[in-house]
Amino acid sequence: MAKGITKRADDYAQWYIDIVLKADMADYSPVKGCMVIKPNGYGIWERIQQHLDRMFKETGHVNAYFPVFIPESFLKKEAEHVKGFAPECAVVTHGGGKLLEEPLVIRPTSETIIWSTYKNWISSYRDLPILINQWANVCRWEMRTRLFLRTTEFLWQEGHTAHATHEEAEEETVRMVHVYRRFAEEYMAMPVVVGRKTEQEKFAGAEHTYCIEALMQDGKALQAGTSHHLGQNFAKAFDVKFQDRDKELKYVYATSWGVSTRLIGGIVMTHSDDNGLVIPPRLAPLPVVFVPIWKSDAERDVVCEKAREITRDWDPLFYRIDDRDQYKPGYKFNDWELKGVPIRVEIGPRDVQNNTVVAVRRDTGEKQALSMDGLREHLTRLLDDIQNNLFARAEQRTRDNTHTVDDYEEYKARIDQGGFFRVFLDHANPEVEAKLQEDTRSTVRCIPFDAPDEEGPCMITGKLCKGRVIAAQAY
Amino acid sequence: MAKGITKRADDYAQWYIDIVLKADMADYSPVKGCMVIKPNGYGIWERIQQHLDRMFKETGHVNAYFPVFIPESFLKKEAEHVKGFAPECAVVTHGGGKLLEEPLVIRPTSETIIWSTYKNWISSYRDLPILINQWANVCRWEMRTRLFLRTTEFLWQEGHTAHATHEEAEEETVRMVHVYRRFAEEYMAMPVVVGRKTEQEKFAGAEHTYCIEALMQDGKALQAGTSHHLGQNFAKAFDVKFQDRDKELKYVYATSWGVSTRLIGGIVMTHSDDNGLVIPPRLAPLPVVFVPIWKSDAERDVVCEKAREITRDWDPLFYRIDDRDQYKPGYKFNDWELKGVPIRVEIGPRDVQNNTVVAVRRDTGEKQALSMDGLREHLTRLLDDIQNNLFARAEQRTRDNTHTVDDYEEYKARIDQGGFFRVFLDHANPEVEAKLQEDTRSTVRCIPFDAPDEEGPCMITGKLCKGRVIAAQAY
Repeated sequence: MAKGITKRADDYAQWYIDIVLKADMADYSPVKGCMVIKPNGYGIWERIQQHLDRMFKETGHVNAYFPVFIPESFLKKEAEHVKGFAPECAVVTHGGGKLLEEPLVIRPTSETIIWSTYKNWISSYRDLPILINQWANVCRWEMRTRLFLRTTEFLWQEGHTAHATHEEAEEETVRMVHVYRRFAEEYMAMPVVVGRKTEQEKFAGAEHTYCIEALMQDGKALQAGTSHHLGQNFAKAFDVKFQDRDKELKYVYATSWGVSTRLIGGIVMTHSDDNGLVIPPRLAPLPVVFVPIWKSDAERDVVCEKAREITRDWDPLFYRIDDRDQYKPGYKFNDWELKGVPIRVEIGPRDVQNNTVVAVRRDTGEKQALSMDGLREHLTRLLDDIQNNLFARAEQRTRDNTHTVDDYEEYKARIDQGGFFRVFLDHANPEVEAKLQEDTRSTVRCIPFDAPDEEGPCMITGKLCKGRVIAAQAY
Repeated sequence: MAKGITKRADDYAQWYIDIVLKADMADYSPVKGCMVIKPNGYGIWERIQQHLDRMFKETGHVNAYFPVFIPESFLKKEAEHVKGFAPECAVVTHGGGKLLEEPLVIRPTSETIIWSTYKNWISSYRDLPILINQWANVCRWEMRTRLFLRTTEFLWQEGHTAHATHEEAEEETVRMVHVYRRFAEEYMAMPVVVGRKTEQEKFAGAEHTYCIEALMQDGKALQAGTSHHLGQNFAKAFDVKFQDRDKELKYVYATSWGVSTRLIGGIVMTHSDDNGLVIPPRLAPLPVVFVPIWKSDAERDVVCEKAREITRDWDPLFYRIDDRDQYKPGYKFNDWELKGVPIRVEIGPRDVQNNTVVAVRRDTGEKQALSMDGLREHLTRLLDDIQNNLFARAEQRTRDNTHTVDDYEEYKARIDQGGFFRVFLDHANPEVEAKLQEDTRSTVRCIPFDAPDEEGPCMITGKLCKGRVIAAQAY
C-alpha cells in the first residue's frame, strides 16, 4: 500500500481506479463523465493506433475524416439505429450565437453521416468497394462512467466499408474481427474469444455483429472490439444504389467496425498487479528505464556516463536514463514499477567494473545480470519473453476460469465468482436472455466461432439448443 | 479544361475549389460549414502529423487528450478570451435526453479546459515545465467557409505548455514558431515570413502572438501557424500557482501554439497549377506511380511483370502500379497529374527491352529516361530535386511579389494586385489598422523578426515608426 494502491483482493474496482490515477494514465475532468487522457495513458493509445493503423492499411483500408456533427434527422432514418443511439446523444442547439434550424447531434458513431456522403460517391460497381477508416472522438451520454472503460467522450477508430455483394461484406466483417483478435493477442497479450453477438446484443442497425471478448482478472468479461455486417440497412435508409455489371440498380452492402480507448482499460485489467501498471512491451511507450545508482558525486558521474555510453546509438524511444537527483533509487524503482515500464536496468559502480547491469522484469520481478556487451539485443529478447509470458499467463487464467455448466442453479451459484461460462441457452428467445440478466446480472457475451458441434437443453427453458454460448458478467 | 478545372488566370477562387474537389481531397458535408476530408486529402494530413509530431517530440513534448466539451463558464474566466471566442461557439444544451444544468461549448481552442486541469497537476516548481500537445478537432462557427481554409469544424494540433518563468515561456513561444517555420519550408516547400502579430491581431488572451505567414500564388497572404505567449493570464483566470525554489507562491506562465488542416489549403495554393494538384514529395501520400503501357494482352503481361519485378523490395508506401484495365494510359496520366503524384513512371514494351523507364516530373512536366538499374535511388534523387525546385520557385515568387512602399496612395493603387507590402505603419494605434482594413481590405500580417533596423513615417498618419511591417490582403 506504499503507493496508495488498493489491493486487488480487497476491492478490485478501487484497485483499477488507483492504477489509472496513480500511474498518471488519466484524470477526471470538470465535465461530468469525460476524462483527460494523460501522457502516460495517451502514449499507449499512440502505440495502439500505430499498430492497428498499419494492420488496416495492410488489409487495403485508407483513412478519411467525417464531421463530428450529425443532423438529428439523419439518425432517425434507420429505425433500429435511432432507438439504440438517440437516448445517449449530446445535442447542439445553438451555433454562432443563434438557435439552429435543426439540432445537431455529436456523433455517437458515424454510420449516418458517412452513408449520407457515400450516396454521392457511389453510382457504379466500379466505385466499390470503399474501404475507409477514421480515427475520431465520439460521444455517448453515460450515466455511470469509469475511466477508459466507459466515458461520455472517448477516442476510437471506426471502419465503414461499402460493397457490391452480401458475400464481400461478410468477408470484410469476418476479416476485421480477426484483425482485432490478432491485435489483442499479439500486441495487447490479451487472449480473446471470437464470436457472434445474439440478436439482443448486436449493434443497433446491424444484420449481425461479431466481437472479441476478453476475461479480466476479476472474472468479468470485457467486450474489446466489434465488427458489424450492416446488410443493406444504411444503403436503404440513405438510398445508396449502384449500377452492377448486369446493369441493374442495387442497394450497397455495408460493414462497420471499431475499437476504442476502452482497450487501455483492458490492458490494465489483464496484466497489472498490486504494485501498479503492467504494460505489454509491444505497446509500452517506454520499454526500458535505466536507474543509475550512486553514493557520491564521483560515482554519479561514472555510472551516468556509462549508461549514456552504452545507449549512445539506441533509439531514444526505446529507453530513458532516470538521472534525477532529487529522488533515491528506491523511490525510482517504485515509480517505474507503478508506471508499468517492462524492464528496469540498474547500474551501479560495481556493475561498471564488472561490465554488467542488473535487469529487472516488471512481469515477474525477476532479476538477472546481463553483460553490457550486446545489451540492446539481450533486452530485446527479454522484452519478447515478457510479451510471451504475459500472454501465456493471461491465457492460462482465461482457461482456468472458463467453466462448462449445464444446470441453472449451479450457474446462479457460481456466476458471481466470475469467469466465462459455456452454457446452452435459447438466445433466439429474447425472454430467456432477459431472465438471465435479471437473475444473474450476466449476459451472453458471444456465440463463439469455434464452439464444438454439440447439442443440449437450454439451462433455463430446457429447449434443445445447438452449440454452447459464452455467458458472463461484463464491464 | 479537360479535367473541368477552371484556369487560375480566369478565377482563382474557383480554381482552388475545383482542385480540392476534383483531386478528391475533400467534399462538402450535409452540415453547413463542415467538410469531409477524403482519403487523398487525409493522406496529406497524416504525413503532416507524422513529421510535426516527430518535431514536437524532438523538442521534448508529449501528447495527451482533453475533453471536447468546455463548461460555458470556463470560457468567461479570461476576459479577452471569451470576447474572442464566445461568438463562434457551438453549444450543447442537451445530453442523454435532458436539459443540461450548464451548457457545454464544443472547444474552439482548449486553453480553458486545459488550465482548469493544470491547476490540479501543478503545485511546485518540480512539476514544471509541462510540455503537452494534443491532436484534436475544434469548432468555430463560421459564416463564410472554404474547404480546408476556413471550416466550422477543423482538425489541428494545439500545444499547451506551463513554465516557471516569463523567460522560459518566451523561449518556448519562439522555439515553436521556428518549428513551424522549419516545417513549412522543409516539408511543405512553402517559404514564410516569421514575425509578431500586432496588438489587434494577436490571440484573444495572449500577451503576444508569433506567426508564420506565406504568400499564395494569387498574392494573398495565408496565416499558416501561430505561437502565443499567454503570460500569466490563464494561470490567473484558473488560479494556477506553484511554490518556487525561493518558497514563494507564483502564477505559472503559459504558451500555446497550433497549426491546422488549413495547411493543406496552403499546399494547394502554393504549388498547384491548371492541370491539378502538386504535392511536395515529402508530404505526398504516394510519391511515385507506375503507368504500364501496352497494346496487347501479351504486352500487358510483360510490362506489368517487369514493373512488379523492379519494385519487388520497395516500400509499398513509396509507389503504386496502376494496372487498371478499364482505363487508357492517357486517362491515367491525366488522373495522376490531377491528384498531384510527384513522379509518374511510364513503362512500355520498348522500355523493357532497353532496360529503361520514362520518368515524368509533376512540377515541370519534364520527361527523362532512367535506367532500371538503381531506379529506386534515381527516383529518390528526383524527388529531392522536385522538393527543392518547388521551394525555390515559391521563394522566387514570394520575393518577386514583396514590395516596399512608402506612399499610401501607391499602396491603395497596388494592394489589389496582391503581394506582401513592406510599409511603415503606426500599428500601436488601433484606428490606423482599422482604417487600413476599411480602405484596402488588407491587414498587418506581422512585424517580421528580421525587419531591418529602419525608421520612417507611418504611411497613413505620418508618425515616425521603427521598422517596417508586412501588410497584405489575406485568407
